[in-house]
Amino acid sequence: MVYGAILAGGTGSRMGAEIPKQFLALQDGRPILIRTLQPFLKCPQIEHILLAVHADWLAYTKRLLHQWAPKSVVVTCFVGGSDRNETMGCILQEMDRLCAAPDSILVTHDGVRPFVTVDLLERSIAAARQYGAAIAAIPAVDTIAQSEDGLTVSGLLDRSKLIQVQTPQTFQFGLLRQMYRRTDAQQLVNMTDAGAICVAQGQPVHLVTGSRLNLKITTPEDLKMAEWIDHIMADDERHLQSGRSGKA
Amino acid sequence: MVYGAILAGGTGSRMGAEIPKQFLALQDGRPILIRTLQPFLKCPQIEHILLAVHADWLAYTKRLLHQWAPKSVVVTCFVGGSDRNETMGCILQEMDRLCAAPDSILVTHDGVRPFVTVDLLERSIAAARQYGAAIAAIPAVDTIAQSEDGLTVSGLLDRSKLIQVQTPQTFQFGLLRQMYRRTDAQQLVNMTDAGAICVAQGQPVHLVTGSRLNLKITTPEDLKMAEWIDHIMADDERHLQSGRSGKA
Repeated sequence: MVYGAILAGGTGSRMGAEIPKQFLALQDGRPILIRTLQPFLKCPQIEHILLAVHADWLAYTKRLLHQWAPKSVVVTCFVGGSDRNETMGCILQEMDRLCAAPDSILVTHDGVRPFVTVDLLERSIAAARQYGAAIAAIPAVDTIAQSEDGLTVSGLLDRSKLIQVQTPQTFQFGLLRQMYRRTDAQQLVNMTDAGAICVAQGQPVHLVTGSRLNLKITTPEDLKMAEWIDHIMADDERHLQSGRSGKA
Repeated sequence: MVYGAILAGGTGSRMGAEIPKQFLALQDGRPILIRTLQPFLKCPQIEHILLAVHADWLAYTKRLLHQWAPKSVVVTCFVGGSDRNETMGCILQEMDRLCAAPDSILVTHDGVRPFVTVDLLERSIAAARQYGAAIAAIPAVDTIAQSEDGLTVSGLLDRSKLIQVQTPQTFQFGLLRQMYRRTDAQQLVNMTDAGAICVAQGQPVHLVTGSRLNLKITTPEDLKMAEWIDHIMADDERHLQSGRSGKA
């Protein structure tokens, strides 16, 4: 069985907004979180979606789900932790409560990456089935440099070997649970995500080709870009549909 | 005196297009290269612009300049080299032909980064005057990982110290010429750009805050994003102008 898990516990302090960014609206008033959820709902393999949010926004999220999400896929909505790794812990607990089998696939994804596609979800699931752990990534486009002080460049990295890690990050559930159990709280503090925990434990992590459009919305500038991408994708969808109905 | 230099020698093989990407049109049929040139034309400090293109596209570029560029700023259009560093060499030669003073400022920029702003150009010029060398950069947003084989993750980097390098890369001309003279042909092969050459030679390179919108157009996906950014920026400009004329 395949589970989707969307991490949406952030409170959005970086946006300077009172509303956490995953609840800000794209076109037609549709919140980013709902836009993120839709490919999960459309993906034929995903049978159950776990949605981790902040306690203050639990009731609000449930109302959004009633308004926007069809009832065809089960969505469990619950309170996540105070950071990414705590929230992953809550998701793993929820998987245990659901008696998920160790060979289940868990597709984890940022609540503020609304432009994930069904195709990327399907390739992630296939790769995790085959390799145990798979993360979406794109080649680094800009030159990546190091700066110790944020004012001057202290070194340059060999771009040809660098990749930008995105989500989905997809795992065999049993394997991921084992990785988290082996990592103590002290180590977790230095880990950015589940992919990092696998790498630290020597678990091979397979790469799946992501997309530059699969951006993470963290600043007002990103939100602006997201609005445009949403418009383009909606246009493409309309063209595709008018093409299918023989009008194009 | 301040010189702008736009590197537009690429032949666009990565886009799968017959026309190099800098000549592809954004809105109103305006080519990307012309869109890139415009903030340079508008920037009050920049008095002379050097434009390096491929030999096959020299005549075409000159026709574009006649059509689109006002005659208020001198634009010298000439043939660049077969890669970025050779083109930089051609630009430095051109600066010598123009008898540029060593304390002149040279603002170098990618021909396929059309959304550079006058503000970013001005901050780059000010920083290069003060520190000798200044490059635009933004904090790395995604987690950056290493992959030796492109298939699996081999290591993760500490994102807090990583930056994505963009252009403009701005230099005191005498300093930059010295750096290039000290770097032999063999070393140049491993250098991605002028900023890298400064770092390799121990010359401090100051950071100027770039923008996520200042993207480099390298793939069809980027071109699509660029079309939207161009539309929104044009809208913003119109709103700003109607505001200034008291209509908003």
